[in-house]
Amino acid sequence: MDVTRVWEGLAEPDGGSIIYVIMDGVGGLPFPGRGGTALEAARTPDLDRLAGESSCGLLEMVGPGITPGSGPGHLALFGYDPLEHNLGRGVLSALGIDFDLQQGDVAARINFATVDDDGKVTDRRAGRIDTETNRGLCEKLRNGITLDPDVELFIRTVSEHRAVLVLRGPGLEAALTDTDPQKVGVPPLDPHADDEGSEKAEGVIRSFVDQSRELLAGEDRANMVLLRGFEKYEPFPSLEERFKLSGLCISEYPMYRGISRLLGMDIHTPPSGVKASFEALESSWSSDHNFYFLHIKKTDSYGESGDFDAKVGVIEEVDALIGKAVDLDPDVLVVTADHSTPALMKAHSWHPVPVMIRARLARADRVERFDELSCVNGALGLRPGVHLIGLALANAGRLAKYGA
Amino acid sequence: MDVTRVWEGLAEPDGGSIIYVIMDGVGGLPFPGRGGTALEAARTPDLDRLAGESSCGLLEMVGPGITPGSGPGHLALFGYDPLEHNLGRGVLSALGIDFDLQQGDVAARINFATVDDDGKVTDRRAGRIDTETNRGLCEKLRNGITLDPDVELFIRTVSEHRAVLVLRGPGLEAALTDTDPQKVGVPPLDPHADDEGSEKAEGVIRSFVDQSRELLAGEDRANMVLLRGFEKYEPFPSLEERFKLSGLCISEYPMYRGISRLLGMDIHTPPSGVKASFEALESSWSSDHNFYFLHIKKTDSYGESGDFDAKVGVIEEVDALIGKAVDLDPDVLVVTADHSTPALMKAHSWHPVPVMIRARLARADRVERFDELSCVNGALGLRPGVHLIGLALANAGRLAKYGA
Repeated sequence: MDVTRVWEGLAEPDGGSIIYVIMDGVGGLPFPGRGGTALEAARTPDLDRLAGESSCGLLEMVGPGITPGSGPGHLALFGYDPLEHNLGRGVLSALGIDFDLQQGDVAARINFATVDDDGKVTDRRAGRIDTETNRGLCEKLRNGITLDPDVELFIRTVSEHRAVLVLRGPGLEAALTDTDPQKVGVPPLDPHADDEGSEKAEGVIRSFVDQSRELLAGEDRANMVLLRGFEKYEPFPSLEERFKLSGLCISEYPMYRGISRLLGMDIHTPPSGVKASFEALESSWSSDHNFYFLHIKKTDSYGESGDFDAKVGVIEEVDALIGKAVDLDPDVLVVTADHSTPALMKAHSWHPVPVMIRARLARADRVERFDELSCVNGALGLRPGVHLIGLALANAGRLAKYGA
Repeated sequence: MDVTRVWEGLAEPDGGSIIYVIMDGVGGLPFPGRGGTALEAARTPDLDRLAGESSCGLLEMVGPGITPGSGPGHLALFGYDPLEHNLGRGVLSALGIDFDLQQGDVAARINFATVDDDGKVTDRRAGRIDTETNRGLCEKLRNGITLDPDVELFIRTVSEHRAVLVLRGPGLEAALTDTDPQKVGVPPLDPHADDEGSEKAEGVIRSFVDQSRELLAGEDRANMVLLRGFEKYEPFPSLEERFKLSGLCISEYPMYRGISRLLGMDIHTPPSGVKASFEALESSWSSDHNFYFLHIKKTDSYGESGDFDAKVGVIEEVDALIGKAVDLDPDVLVVTADHSTPALMKAHSWHPVPVMIRARLARADRVERFDELSCVNGALGLRPGVHLIGLALANAGRLAKYGA
């Protein structure tokens, strides 16, 4: 039995407010010469005081040994088991640029690439053309391509060689194979419909690829498109439908806004910087929402770039601002991450992330510091990431008793 | 969703090397007058130092309260959920004597037994005849029995009153009921096919039993055979197919070699003794394999016989040799057990076993000693045994990121 379905049945319309402060990728590993992980090295008096008042533990976000991408990590935090809820590259790429996907849209990731005179791929990233060049190419394709009149075409720049394709129209399914061969020295693959329903989309994509080839023929490097991750967009059952949560996402970065939109949350885009995000939380705090998701990106970014000290700096910045969330007096305050991003690895990792739940009824344990090893001894233990929303709901008084 | 299937999808062909050192049945309970469990009583400076550098925890091998047999315990360690992958007595008995089972073979366990003049069982173990007598009886049956010409018959001694029957030939299925009545004072049961496909095998077994009765009629004690655990042998999907692991099993004992062969590992049979097993690990260490399974039997044997001090001695012997595994510089070194065998109980038990994972990227915790209670505070927590292979794969850099 999937426990998230049990929560759905028990969720009550009334109850307390919940704030999630998600420090993306904050978990880590000890860094040589720095005396521990970023959380251990950081001076965090306020987070530590909160830990002392909280139930602490560790979340293994998706599963043992599994390194979560950004999509699965966040889905788990919101109670959507990422092994059940698939979020592919096409939809994620569109969500990641704030594209307003509609139910039934077919999305795919575009790479601009270089092919030689024989049509063989020589560079799958077209020498990582700059984003401005990319914008020009997307404009050229938009203006030059004519498709089936009942299919609407959207082409949007992501960055460098990356773009997004969205098709909108009746009768489109997305069981299509990639045209990206994932290696050089061979021509792009033909798109192929894996089922009958996707044959219309196959025809549209073939036409799109052929016209793109012609339109880009004169380009120096970006003379071809490679497509992958075809996916039909079906919004997930919302947090409101499932858990009676009316959510607001506060995130500087489009990817996290996109995932939040997918789950039916409202969106607030703050100005740049950790401080501005916390100020946005303060200014948007109202009875219109009972679930606030505040996303801090830079802990992950500096982990990815291997900049341990900068990651420590962001954690200390959050520490100095977490009082603003406390001062709003939410019924439940959660601080955690969507996955670890050890600066040592310059990549996401599978290591569990520390979590604390501060609430009037949370069982405060003996953990006095918010870091990976201290939280090993917390009252929440080590548990799957998908458990978090259930614990938050319970602590907010939002789950009825199970059984008579 | 079964997480082991997720690992299958993420497993990469390249990555680091993994060593499993499995001390069979090493987990235990405090023994009166000895100041703790065998692991606690043993002097283990090297294992303790390793624990200090490792992620530690406890594995509940098959499930809460479930005492694993040797088959399920090892299947879990290798990522084959023993609640899904059934390994019956017939096949396990054949694997346990290094019999080279072929796909489609039907295997069953034989007990030599005593029946009285009315044909009623008076001793299900024929007074535990010695193994030499058993060999003579098997020889007599092999020479005397004639079956359906397209069915090949194998009869092999295990030990004392135990032997194995294997049938090989077309059209054999194994949905057959046991002939062992599991009690005395009643005659052996007739074998009965539970489905149509097994009727041919039923006929063969009836004939085998009838001829055995006649051939053994003059025997003093072992004048009958009892059969149980009919099972058709289907090799499991291999470790290579599932996790892209090319394995080598180093085990003195045939049962563990048999399980390893079932999973597609190569086999190395070392001379007797713990030291010889570690030397075999050293001498077989090469790029031909990326997964080494070193099995130490005696910790279990002395647990089963209730010889606490001898179990402590084996643990100390492993401690003195573990440096050889460390010196090979594997990317991942795992030390654990397949189940507990407390000398106090003289039997396998359900108690979780300590585990440590030493790897560059394993999150070393505050556990400084390798024993049952110290590992309670480890970063791996208490988790199902089947999780281990996923963690080992991740630490070896053998699992791709999950999701975009």
